[in-house]
Amino acid sequence: MLRSIMLVVAYDGTNYCGWQSQTNGLSVQEKIENACKEKFKQKVIVRGCSRTDAGVHAEHQVVAIQVDTDITIEKIPLMLNSSLPNDIVVKYAKYVPLNFNPIRDTKYKIYRYSILNTDIRVPKMMRYAAYYYKTLDIKLMRQAAKFMIGTHDFKAFCSSEKATKTTVRTIYDIQIKNEKNNIINIYVKGNGFLHHMVRIIAGTLIKVGEKTIDKNKIKNIIDSMERKNAGPTAPPEGLTLEYVSYDE
Amino acid sequence: MLRSIMLVVAYDGTNYCGWQSQTNGLSVQEKIENACKEKFKQKVIVRGCSRTDAGVHAEHQVVAIQVDTDITIEKIPLMLNSSLPNDIVVKYAKYVPLNFNPIRDTKYKIYRYSILNTDIRVPKMMRYAAYYYKTLDIKLMRQAAKFMIGTHDFKAFCSSEKATKTTVRTIYDIQIKNEKNNIINIYVKGNGFLHHMVRIIAGTLIKVGEKTIDKNKIKNIIDSMERKNAGPTAPPEGLTLEYVSYDE
Repeated sequence: MLRSIMLVVAYDGTNYCGWQSQTNGLSVQEKIENACKEKFKQKVIVRGCSRTDAGVHAEHQVVAIQVDTDITIEKIPLMLNSSLPNDIVVKYAKYVPLNFNPIRDTKYKIYRYSILNTDIRVPKMMRYAAYYYKTLDIKLMRQAAKFMIGTHDFKAFCSSEKATKTTVRTIYDIQIKNEKNNIINIYVKGNGFLHHMVRIIAGTLIKVGEKTIDKNKIKNIIDSMERKNAGPTAPPEGLTLEYVSYDE
Repeated sequence: MLRSIMLVVAYDGTNYCGWQSQTNGLSVQEKIENACKEKFKQKVIVRGCSRTDAGVHAEHQVVAIQVDTDITIEKIPLMLNSSLPNDIVVKYAKYVPLNFNPIRDTKYKIYRYSILNTDIRVPKMMRYAAYYYKTLDIKLMRQAAKFMIGTHDFKAFCSSEKATKTTVRTIYDIQIKNEKNNIINIYVKGNGFLHHMVRIIAGTLIKVGEKTIDKNKIKNIIDSMERKNAGPTAPPEGLTLEYVSYDE
């Protein structure tokens, strides 16, 4: 019987060209397609809710597969994990209605951007955080972030190459936390994100923390709708897709 | 003026053939030699206190260099770090007597062996812990570890290929800690370690935790002096050189 299954997938994106299958490297999607083909003995279409870029990680990528199977749902994660490489894992699976669409049905997403902020870098963290040795002023970053919350045209925070129909998005919240081991985590919760949007937000907030962009300029940067006015695109290793919700 | 400098170095061993320069791959030692050559403009002999194997990590490798320099000691870590790759870092430097020998002068070393013990693996931990999905009985592992503490001939816990003059070593302590995120850390403190000794200790304790080696057999295994009676050599990614002391 054809069924739709939602998988919650985590991965270390270091060795991948990103979520989506491309010609120039290994994708996470391809690895999951191959594991599904091997275990379900059929071609399975795999759709992810977020096209994470090369080097970006996920704690909670939501993946929909349609497959003709009667396997007990609890067995599916371990079954697929035995065919997946160590840096990809299915954490959880559940049956969902056949018309479930992981992109359209999303209510909100949370991305985490992690910064290692210390003068002596930490080798084991370098794949999972962006490294900045200059001390960042978190208070200024928090004040700047407030100007980003709300519904805005985020064209200034979008890579020009992949423009979409509308560049209006809603950011529900930005939390900046000073964690142990010199990690600063920026959590961005929104209804959807433009290409590189979280990394440009992080790059801009880092410039505010370094005092090279004034916190009061954020509104002007948004209003300008000019990519060049925002900060740089922060590197991919700092970014993790943290959570995706399908409930209001 | 020729001076001896002690460097405390941390590294992620994933991409290296180990500490020591070899013909078959990049070594950490070589990277530090190259950084020293670049910054001090002279050939510098670099000696480490522990020859960690391929894939093994260090939080605190002690390295001695002899170099003709008058640079302020506080500037040396940042100077060398700017020539080192991201996965190697000099945490600290100090001048030591010219006759300082990082191997001979060691008082004790602490290694940590990390195990990720959960049915769903964690991608970001796979480079830094050995993964075991079967639940390990930590109480049994602690009881077994007690039989290892003390001065023994550890021939049964040494890779046969690299036999040394004496295989007698003293283990001062073994602590097994149940940490958060399903990590079990085994800390082994001793006056010196044979080739693969900590990984064979870990592999043996894992077998005890899985209940495939009886905790009361440890004394017999040691007394047998036969490598085949101990457990397997646990994989390198779980091992970290945690600390080396030069004080009593």
